[in-house]
Amino acid sequence: MNASAAISELAIANRIIAHLRLVDSFGHITVRNPENPARFFMSRARAPGLVTKEDILEFDLDSTPVDLRGLRPYSERFIHGCLYKSRPDVMAICHNHAHELLPLAVTKTAMRPALHSAAVIGYEVPVWDIRDRFGDTNMLVTTNEMGDSLAATVGKGKAALMRGHGSVVAGKSVQDAVFITFYLRLNAEVLIKAMSMGEPITYLSPGETDRSGELHSEAAAQGRAWEDWCSQAGIATPSLK
Amino acid sequence: MNASAAISELAIANRIIAHLRLVDSFGHITVRNPENPARFFMSRARAPGLVTKEDILEFDLDSTPVDLRGLRPYSERFIHGCLYKSRPDVMAICHNHAHELLPLAVTKTAMRPALHSAAVIGYEVPVWDIRDRFGDTNMLVTTNEMGDSLAATVGKGKAALMRGHGSVVAGKSVQDAVFITFYLRLNAEVLIKAMSMGEPITYLSPGETDRSGELHSEAAAQGRAWEDWCSQAGIATPSLK
Amino acid sequence: MNASAAISELAIANRIIAHLRLVDSFGHITVRNPENPARFFMSRARAPGLVTKEDILEFDLDSTPVDLRGLRPYSERFIHGCLYKSRPDVMAICHNHAHELLPLAVTKTAMRPALHSAAVIGYEVPVWDIRDRFGDTNMLVTTNEMGDSLAATVGKGKAALMRGHGSVVAGKSVQDAVFITFYLRLNAEVLIKAMSMGEPITYLSPGETDRSGELHSEAAAQGRAWEDWCSQAGIATPSLK
Amino acid sequence: MNASAAISELAIANRIIAHLRLVDSFGHITVRNPENPARFFMSRARAPGLVTKEDILEFDLDSTPVDLRGLRPYSERFIHGCLYKSRPDVMAICHNHAHELLPLAVTKTAMRPALHSAAVIGYEVPVWDIRDRFGDTNMLVTTNEMGDSLAATVGKGKAALMRGHGSVVAGKSVQDAVFITFYLRLNAEVLIKAMSMGEPITYLSPGETDRSGELHSEAAAQGRAWEDWCSQAGIATPSLK
Repeated sequence: MNASAAISELAIANRIIAHLRLVDSFGHITVRNPENPARFFMSRARAPGLVTKEDILEFDLDSTPVDLRGLRPYSERFIHGCLYKSRPDVMAICHNHAHELLPLAVTKTAMRPALHSAAVIGYEVPVWDIRDRFGDTNMLVTTNEMGDSLAATVGKGKAALMRGHGSVVAGKSVQDAVFITFYLRLNAEVLIKAMSMGEPITYLSPGETDRSGELHSEAAAQGRAWEDWCSQAGIATPSLK
Repeated sequence: MNASAAISELAIANRIIAHLRLVDSFGHITVRNPENPARFFMSRARAPGLVTKEDILEFDLDSTPVDLRGLRPYSERFIHGCLYKSRPDVMAICHNHAHELLPLAVTKTAMRPALHSAAVIGYEVPVWDIRDRFGDTNMLVTTNEMGDSLAATVGKGKAALMRGHGSVVAGKSVQDAVFITFYLRLNAEVLIKAMSMGEPITYLSPGETDRSGELHSEAAAQGRAWEDWCSQAGIATPSLK
Repeated sequence: MNASAAISELAIANRIIAHLRLVDSFGHITVRNPENPARFFMSRARAPGLVTKEDILEFDLDSTPVDLRGLRPYSERFIHGCLYKSRPDVMAICHNHAHELLPLAVTKTAMRPALHSAAVIGYEVPVWDIRDRFGDTNMLVTTNEMGDSLAATVGKGKAALMRGHGSVVAGKSVQDAVFITFYLRLNAEVLIKAMSMGEPITYLSPGETDRSGELHSEAAAQGRAWEDWCSQAGIATPSLK
Repeated sequence: MNASAAISELAIANRIIAHLRLVDSFGHITVRNPENPARFFMSRARAPGLVTKEDILEFDLDSTPVDLRGLRPYSERFIHGCLYKSRPDVMAICHNHAHELLPLAVTKTAMRPALHSAAVIGYEVPVWDIRDRFGDTNMLVTTNEMGDSLAATVGKGKAALMRGHGSVVAGKSVQDAVFITFYLRLNAEVLIKAMSMGEPITYLSPGETDRSGELHSEAAAQGRAWEDWCSQAGIATPSLK
């Protein structure tokens, strides 16, 4: 995939995450430049549901824009730059406030996968609390220092919850980042309801998480969802192979 | 903004709050006349999803109509007149029965913000119970005395829950009133689920509330949501700046 | 209103209750023949969302069809006939399985109004359990004896929950029956969430129920919702007066 | 019904279960070949919402494809083959991850019917845990040994929950399999909410389950839902008889 194809896919991903309500008017998804790993692509500051290719800007890993073209960047671009810097394996990142997972973000409950398709979130999703290190802030990740702190919490994992805010997800591709975000939210919804029932929860074992996570990271699984989501969001795609 | 532009924006806001289901067939949003702070604009009694510019009437701060043109006014216009009277800084008000926040209105739980975007609701949303002062009523705010009582509960704040009824939200602009209402509802939903889980909730600190509230009151944040909501509701808008 | 107008309104009501998801593929709404109080109109057995004027049949108060025209009647028409017989003031009835109120129907929790607009359900909604008198059945109300038993539980009230099944609502008009059903469901949803939170619930007082119930039974309130629901369901209506 | 008609109905059923969100991008529904009970029809691996007649493949009861035509089969086809083998009365099977029933699948709560229309699920829906016999896996049913184990848990019943995964439903026809799946999900939703309320649940008695289950297995009931679901999913159907 070259840079131009990556930008096209990123525009589609914005449309999809809005359609699936993984984001509301806020949140953002980015992709590392496949032609230059020291750069990433991100929309200007705009609701994801409205983003087009023309809105996409390029940033370096300090989250400095290469050329703003007079547009306003997202103030939280540091989430992305810092995580790309610390994780060369990560090719796409989605920061979201998916409404259904927020109850876990306000209770500081670390999340583990209980669903086979949610194995892609990894063994446990840690909670990052900006207040622990930065005290009273406006809650946004607006500096490289904050971004580095969040990236350290993500560590080698797939995601972190952000206390009082939402989550961040790291994928090996744009489709992977959307897929993980979708099943992170579903896992949260299911856990919240199960906790409300007061019944003990059976989580996936580490072995199940490894094996089911690997399976659901393959193109066969993720491509099936992607074709479906494109169709739901009214986006024409080449047929499934 | 002149009076005519305020009326246009008010008609759009009616469409948006209906589309977002912040109101059902009941509830209303108003704007202070920018050309005359002793007057406000409000639709005739009609479901917000159907309101057009032709439905908008003008009232003085006693909630007396300037010219009814044969139309029926909302009986709860006193919510608005009294709050505009007590709060010169308030330029728009939304009274709603958003279904998702009603569980808090029947349990008399005072709400505090737990989400960064909900910082706009202020430190705590008090609950006003019409029965405390007025005994058994039909639950509607239909006199200036009742409206003054509710306005006193709102005080210098952004909102109040109304026991067994809904909420009222005070904004510095139409967009602000809609934004606060949207995140008031989301904060309620998240708290209700978190309480059901039986986990301790981490609220925003007062400092976080101040800083995140200020940030989310800016045009950069609110304009992004407004552009998105207009698009979702099928309303053409000038492009985002 | 003559019989022909009643039939037209009944067809519209079927469309609306399906659009509002007050019914799924099952459930039914009926209207007493305004030209002959010993008869009522009801669709043939069909999902409410598909009912047209051509599907409407006439029944006497024993729920015997006047002329089936080769069509299949609902087997639960006795719910309607028996309630019209016992309650001359009732002009329309809605039997539904609205999904959101079913948790109350499986826990046998008698429901009281906690929301001002739900005052129309009356002081308390009793639960009728078919098993109490009829033992093990297929759960359907398929005889006049069963219908009389259910009507006795409704008594002079507005509604009854039916254990393991749904609810029945009695209105003074088609619009009233739909309005009560809508707010019965909302009241159920709100109570279920409030109970899950474990917080004490503040119900409307009897005086509030009387006064707010009367207010929300007026054409001014119900007509506003009706105009809105017709619009949402894509039904052209004369403008609001 | 001949094989060609069965394939047409299966394509429609795929569209319907996607529209009703009984499946997301995963899950599958199959039908036994009415012309050869040792074979069944199933789509190639694709999101159900996108399946057309051209995607349908034929398999024997070992889940070996008769002719793949270069297409990729679902890896979990063994769920279907093994259940058709053990249950000559079963003509259609739906495997799904309906989101709303998943909280029961992660708590290993055996489900009983509490709603009259859910009597079609039988007295109790057992939970199958792949780990009990197969240890750490990727959670998918990808061998005949696994499929036989799941089929043994279903036994003579209508369904089984699959721990951490979803459910499988066995019907006497395609319409029956969809109907059971729909009300299995609704029963799960209602039980989850009722458990959250902390109120004791009244389940259907065995006699009620038998009688209401029989009634809701008849063409009169299921055809009414089918006509409705076809209409909702935009599928033209012959008129209801």
